[in-house]
Amino acid sequence: MMNEYDTIIIGGGPGGLAAAYPLAEEQRVLIIERNLWGGTCPNFGCDPKKMLYSAVEAKDWSARMTGNGLNGIPDVNWPRLMAFKRSYTETVPAGTKGGLNQAGITTIDGQAQLLDGQTVQVDDEIFTATNIIIATGQQPVIPSIPGAENLGTSTDFLDLDQLPRTMAFIGGGYVALELANIAATAGAEVHIVNHSDQILRAFPESATKQLRQLMKQKRIIFHDNVEIEAVHPTAEGVRLTGNGLDLRVHRAFSAMGRKPAIDGLGLEDIGMALTKKGIVVDNHLQTSIPGVYAIGDVIDKDQPKLTPVSSFEGRYVALHLLGVADPIVYPKIPSVVYSSAMLGQVGVSLKEAQANPDQYTVTSQNTTHWYTYNRIKDPLAQVTTIVDKQSDQLVGAVVLSTIADELLNYFTMIINQHLTRDDLQRQILAYPSPASDLGYFY
Amino acid sequence: MMNEYDTIIIGGGPGGLAAAYPLAEEQRVLIIERNLWGGTCPNFGCDPKKMLYSAVEAKDWSARMTGNGLNGIPDVNWPRLMAFKRSYTETVPAGTKGGLNQAGITTIDGQAQLLDGQTVQVDDEIFTATNIIIATGQQPVIPSIPGAENLGTSTDFLDLDQLPRTMAFIGGGYVALELANIAATAGAEVHIVNHSDQILRAFPESATKQLRQLMKQKRIIFHDNVEIEAVHPTAEGVRLTGNGLDLRVHRAFSAMGRKPAIDGLGLEDIGMALTKKGIVVDNHLQTSIPGVYAIGDVIDKDQPKLTPVSSFEGRYVALHLLGVADPIVYPKIPSVVYSSAMLGQVGVSLKEAQANPDQYTVTSQNTTHWYTYNRIKDPLAQVTTIVDKQSDQLVGAVVLSTIADELLNYFTMIINQHLTRDDLQRQILAYPSPASDLGYFY
Repeated sequence: MMNEYDTIIIGGGPGGLAAAYPLAEEQRVLIIERNLWGGTCPNFGCDPKKMLYSAVEAKDWSARMTGNGLNGIPDVNWPRLMAFKRSYTETVPAGTKGGLNQAGITTIDGQAQLLDGQTVQVDDEIFTATNIIIATGQQPVIPSIPGAENLGTSTDFLDLDQLPRTMAFIGGGYVALELANIAATAGAEVHIVNHSDQILRAFPESATKQLRQLMKQKRIIFHDNVEIEAVHPTAEGVRLTGNGLDLRVHRAFSAMGRKPAIDGLGLEDIGMALTKKGIVVDNHLQTSIPGVYAIGDVIDKDQPKLTPVSSFEGRYVALHLLGVADPIVYPKIPSVVYSSAMLGQVGVSLKEAQANPDQYTVTSQNTTHWYTYNRIKDPLAQVTTIVDKQSDQLVGAVVLSTIADELLNYFTMIINQHLTRDDLQRQILAYPSPASDLGYFY
Repeated sequence: MMNEYDTIIIGGGPGGLAAAYPLAEEQRVLIIERNLWGGTCPNFGCDPKKMLYSAVEAKDWSARMTGNGLNGIPDVNWPRLMAFKRSYTETVPAGTKGGLNQAGITTIDGQAQLLDGQTVQVDDEIFTATNIIIATGQQPVIPSIPGAENLGTSTDFLDLDQLPRTMAFIGGGYVALELANIAATAGAEVHIVNHSDQILRAFPESATKQLRQLMKQKRIIFHDNVEIEAVHPTAEGVRLTGNGLDLRVHRAFSAMGRKPAIDGLGLEDIGMALTKKGIVVDNHLQTSIPGVYAIGDVIDKDQPKLTPVSSFEGRYVALHLLGVADPIVYPKIPSVVYSSAMLGQVGVSLKEAQANPDQYTVTSQNTTHWYTYNRIKDPLAQVTTIVDKQSDQLVGAVVLSTIADELLNYFTMIINQHLTRDDLQRQILAYPSPASDLGYFY
């Protein structure tokens, strides 16, 4: 009797939490976490990454002002920076669990296994519920090559006590580019070993090439078109070998992407539909097993796998279980890579716009010399906007700049609220600020 | 014949320019400037001020990260910072004039005097037009005390070749607070001499007291309730005396406010209605002389006297002269003071909200320990929101933070576009970023 709930949530990350709180106002809710409460983002994902990025941003800005009014570039003190990060992360698990308990939500630490669409086993204990929500996220991919056990992951990098003097990141996605930039700015010799010659495939190549240049200016060394064949432990670290590559570094990290974290859940055993990209869900986020839902990074979806998308889905599925029948409708979602500059995009992609010139007007401007970007000595600012010809409204944007996230947030609001040029002309925003330029991008 | 125009604009600043360009598409336009083309903002106002502020922001951020991951605080190199500022300002006058001429707009350098509602004299030349737009802005107030000629103004400060070792600003408004912060961060000993014990009277005292504390932490010395009686030249600079004050500094600046720049225009002579706050205009920005309009800082208005408001009025009056009959409607306008933190506000004032508790809900939060502000070690972040109880919509905000302008720009868009809580819940913004907190302020 004690083990009967209305809803069981598997995964105490941003998605699970966003579902748990509203459900708990009307239901008996159990939430199960096998690792750290709070999940990837606050413990070993976007939050700690951006804590480290704060030192990067401050140092970079000072460096750019050298010769323009500032003398002296601060050095990164890695152990202190890590302490700064830990001052945040160390409070997350207990704070998260405490918050849940205070809201009357039952928390259990352990590995959950689904026995059927209404039954979950944790260790030897059985729990039942009307609904189950799977919100277990993703985990780093480790390559299947000899010596792979000598590779670290993003989780390891984000908790390094000391900064290795030399290091390599295997991969060309956002994890590799973000962590490589932090390491290089902190003073390490950094190598990126990539199986192709493209980085960030979800972004336009014109923009990723520019980002690559900025990363090279930070002395990051790219090894393109290399398939790593083995990782050899050495006295001082590891040796990476692959086609044409023989690289010795103190540490190497696998940043080859992330895969759905479904091991141990027993989903295949109960016949749940899965793909390589994750759990298959319908437009109510229900899996192929009636009553079982899935949210966040663990699902197979077209939307970017980002923290606020998981939270959005968590809130949606809670509302849905509490009676809202409408299918989920996603807004346009910005995604931003925090590297040697920020590279972000939102809405209609440049590729789609270029393929449909009758429908879209593409405007690409190098804004490096605009007042806003010159003032902060942005090394390279490039803003591309995509306007729907029929509505004359902004529908997409790509931004490369050290302040791309701010500009993209304005663009996202403009796009999702369908603001017209007239609406923008009727705004008065703080001047001079990045927002006061909004009338000049398209 | 050559001297007949459709519209004559007096003042080549942001307001005049915003009117000139759209008018020139259909009219013969003459614009007259007696000082630097581009006006106050780009030459000796907000633009150069924020160029200097860039070094302040970069240095402060590095300083705040000291002990949190960065070692070494850069020093301000004043001559190089001034060169950085001049690299921008020096191009403004010629660029502005060139742009106007390229658009077919006639430009004349000189002091304009109105002879009647359709006639303007510049030196010995007479110009006539159907309409005249006065856009001459404001100029610094110099106190009427002995030795006042030894005081500098904001214009002088923003173009100092060397940073004086000690200096004083007379005043407690935004000019004094912004320039004092720049000078103190650059390494000077800075005094603020204020005739009362309040600063920034347009802002809530609760917020200005906090800003004052932040300024004191930058070693800025406040001398309150002092009426300066005389400025005495000394061998090394000036000596300021007043009730109880006897202060020797290398330079002193009058920052007692700004007054309408109407001297020489002959407005009294043609009977134009004026107040101490400026030219009286109706809701079409027409003065008491039919056909003569006034825009920008030179007019008597309730709206804050800010650059983008002048531009807004310039665009409006151009449209009006081209046939739009509607009176001007202002959006809610943010105003931001860029000092030891940024202090800004928009919309319904805290005072008005507190006086009408049945109508408004006021929520004041210290957000210093929120992730966004902790990440950048914001020394003190305080966000107050004002929500209309009936509509449940945001209608006003006060923000103190090193990134207040960004947050206020989001709030301004939310207020002016009448976004609901549901609209915000349906947004997904870059995470973690200041915008991803928007759901938590009210």
